[in-house]
Amino acid sequence: MSSGLDALFYPKTIALIGATTKMKFGFGVTKDMLESDFKVYPIHPTEDVIMGHKVYRSILDIPDDIDLAIIVIPAKKIKKAMEECAKKGVKAVIIESAGFSETGAEGRKLQDEIVTIAKENNIRVVGPNCLGILNMANGLSTTGIKAERLNKGGVSVVAQSGMLGSILLEWAPSQNVGFSKVVTVGNKCDVSEIELMEYFCEDEDTKVIVIYLEGVTGGERFVEVAKRVTKKKPVLVVKSGRTNAGSKAVASHTGSMAGEDRIYDAVFSQTGIIRFDYFEEAFSVAKTFDFLPLPKGNRLAIITSSGSMGALACDECVAQDLELTELSPKTIEKLKASAPSWVTVQNPMDVGPSGLFLPAVKGIMTDDNADAVILIMVAPLSSFGGKQIFDMLFGSFKKMLSKYKDKPFVFCTFGDPDLAIKKAREHIEGSGIPVFTSPQDAVKAIGCMYRFKVHSEG
Amino acid sequence: MSSGLDALFYPKTIALIGATTKMKFGFGVTKDMLESDFKVYPIHPTEDVIMGHKVYRSILDIPDDIDLAIIVIPAKKIKKAMEECAKKGVKAVIIESAGFSETGAEGRKLQDEIVTIAKENNIRVVGPNCLGILNMANGLSTTGIKAERLNKGGVSVVAQSGMLGSILLEWAPSQNVGFSKVVTVGNKCDVSEIELMEYFCEDEDTKVIVIYLEGVTGGERFVEVAKRVTKKKPVLVVKSGRTNAGSKAVASHTGSMAGEDRIYDAVFSQTGIIRFDYFEEAFSVAKTFDFLPLPKGNRLAIITSSGSMGALACDECVAQDLELTELSPKTIEKLKASAPSWVTVQNPMDVGPSGLFLPAVKGIMTDDNADAVILIMVAPLSSFGGKQIFDMLFGSFKKMLSKYKDKPFVFCTFGDPDLAIKKAREHIEGSGIPVFTSPQDAVKAIGCMYRFKVHSEG
Repeated sequence: MSSGLDALFYPKTIALIGATTKMKFGFGVTKDMLESDFKVYPIHPTEDVIMGHKVYRSILDIPDDIDLAIIVIPAKKIKKAMEECAKKGVKAVIIESAGFSETGAEGRKLQDEIVTIAKENNIRVVGPNCLGILNMANGLSTTGIKAERLNKGGVSVVAQSGMLGSILLEWAPSQNVGFSKVVTVGNKCDVSEIELMEYFCEDEDTKVIVIYLEGVTGGERFVEVAKRVTKKKPVLVVKSGRTNAGSKAVASHTGSMAGEDRIYDAVFSQTGIIRFDYFEEAFSVAKTFDFLPLPKGNRLAIITSSGSMGALACDECVAQDLELTELSPKTIEKLKASAPSWVTVQNPMDVGPSGLFLPAVKGIMTDDNADAVILIMVAPLSSFGGKQIFDMLFGSFKKMLSKYKDKPFVFCTFGDPDLAIKKAREHIEGSGIPVFTSPQDAVKAIGCMYRFKVHSEG
Repeated sequence: MSSGLDALFYPKTIALIGATTKMKFGFGVTKDMLESDFKVYPIHPTEDVIMGHKVYRSILDIPDDIDLAIIVIPAKKIKKAMEECAKKGVKAVIIESAGFSETGAEGRKLQDEIVTIAKENNIRVVGPNCLGILNMANGLSTTGIKAERLNKGGVSVVAQSGMLGSILLEWAPSQNVGFSKVVTVGNKCDVSEIELMEYFCEDEDTKVIVIYLEGVTGGERFVEVAKRVTKKKPVLVVKSGRTNAGSKAVASHTGSMAGEDRIYDAVFSQTGIIRFDYFEEAFSVAKTFDFLPLPKGNRLAIITSSGSMGALACDECVAQDLELTELSPKTIEKLKASAPSWVTVQNPMDVGPSGLFLPAVKGIMTDDNADAVILIMVAPLSSFGGKQIFDMLFGSFKKMLSKYKDKPFVFCTFGDPDLAIKKAREHIEGSGIPVFTSPQDAVKAIGCMYRFKVHSEG
């Protein structure tokens, strides 16, 4: 790509300015980079060898062209390092160190000087005050979280904060979120969510884009790009700084202007961006987009073993502009034949403890009246012998569900996190069916998919 | 109590009508009751001995007075069983079987006949279509979940649905929710949430009441009782049936009328009931009420290692009518002395990776300007060697925090569920400090406490 972001995600050579063996800031990235298969040159003022790698005093001493420099030295030494990067012809730089615009006027001045050097020399900069990037396509990670610990998938992420970004990555494997590329943009003195949206829109490995946003810098450009990108790929945003108090916190965090929140609300709905209050929720919905085909329409069917949870799902269905479908006469007839008398065959279908799940799913997944199906399966089984019973139960589901892949199907369960939920994530989600622990969230996810479908076709 | 509910929670003798050794409905309660230390008499038409207990053909054959009868036989046989219970002078009955008003007119007629027998003979009835009760004070559980698997605490619960009730109980131990009494009321032909609110209000073991509600039967009485109870103890409600679709689902579930949702909203806010959309949320807040003292005012302080999470907390702070307090000059001075230059000492206090948590908590917990404190501690530590580092980190917190018990303090973390979150629940929550995995939920919990304080004093 002409934007120069390829040097960021696919560098052939990397310099690590501030490599360290001490357990301090920079240690994680030193360890990960030097243990990786990438061609990495550590730079340090006094050390000669770090983790078996020859150390250079300056990037200028490296006998190789450098695509990407990762900078983890203190803020005040970074201007000089940038000048050397410019001389060396480095294409992209990640500045992980803090101490810039987020600290006030002096820091902002320093940051501006760095931007000037970058612009004059065609260097793209990620950061400062961030944890850089992660690319599942080649295993590159400057975040302190090794790529091999994550699942590969279609979710690409822009997180403003390094801390949040890395914490999300620590959480994500348990939720089976599959990643493509992750960038923590920090103070975003150069590379921002706008350009990354565009890059991810063209990126073949990216199916859905999640952005944690504290504020945008170029408002008009953001709107223009978002409008275009959301026609092609879903863009899910969590934005903080809703209130003055939040904005103030944001300002001292990454130096962003959070802006009027209702303007953001308007921009998001106008551009087709889907907003979330909780990032966990955004990632569950992203996973749903990544795993499932879009629904053809808004007619939802609900199968449940808990009447209460079914009722909560129905309420959310209305809030999400989804329609509780009427099952076709053929489906009703078929299900009535196999159901005990106390089960009412309707939508939502409360199968209670009848164990009628498999025929119900089979019947409804092949019913043209249903565009999407949610199965709420809760059962107080812990007393009946633990993991084995869940292995058996969810295993048989997985097998059956593998036959129906043309219609979005979402699974919802609840109970002991170490039994019901863990086993559902292993068997059901592990085979590509999103698992939710709340019926409302399951319905919301289908609602988001339906809205994206309408928006992208409109 | 004159209401006869004591016979339900504290029976001296119990008859189990429908005891069974087959793996069907009724097996769980048979096993649990016959393995318990309670004086339980199994009743079955043909068996002679079940799990070492002599079996009786009818409750009338039992050579002992019976306080409580648990009924798990098919619906159509229950009228006769009720007549025998009446003859026997039974004080309370739990009907777990389904097949009553939730199935339509015929079932409703059967249910009405049972109610008539009960009223004429002063028998209190829980159910039908439920899983009965659980009392942590004496270990009595008819729910299929053994009391010993749960934590003892101050949360008493009314759940309409048996399924949801038992699922909540399977989930609760992982969340350190401590229970006092749990009742699943099902079709509530007699005992309802109204009377249970009153009972729990007087119950010394109950500190906070959680109700999952599909609809109330006696509207005026509900309002009158709720007004009185919420002055003394917090009442948290999750109500489904917000919409027509949800109401319809509710009707076929427990035969309740869900009613106009906005009327409920009005009733809840008028009576001081706190409403939740998600039951997980209701239980986290209940735990907070159970664990912590009420805040003296609405001035909140936030300490965070993640600027993003701090900003999300600030936003919620405004939504909850809480004030982000100004730290006292003394606290600021003290914290400035120990903080590195890049940490801005203010509220929210973003300590970043400075590790300044302990002095920050110490300083702010003793600052009279703060009525409540939230600590958001996220750290991407998984790479640094797993459980040990969390044991060390959270262990030192626990020790320090044990000194400050007079002010509500809430902990928030996020990350790998098997590391950060599990360890926080073990160390921090295990020692009586509620742990949240979302900054917004942590702030909401403090907001609920503050609102209850104002309401109960008003």
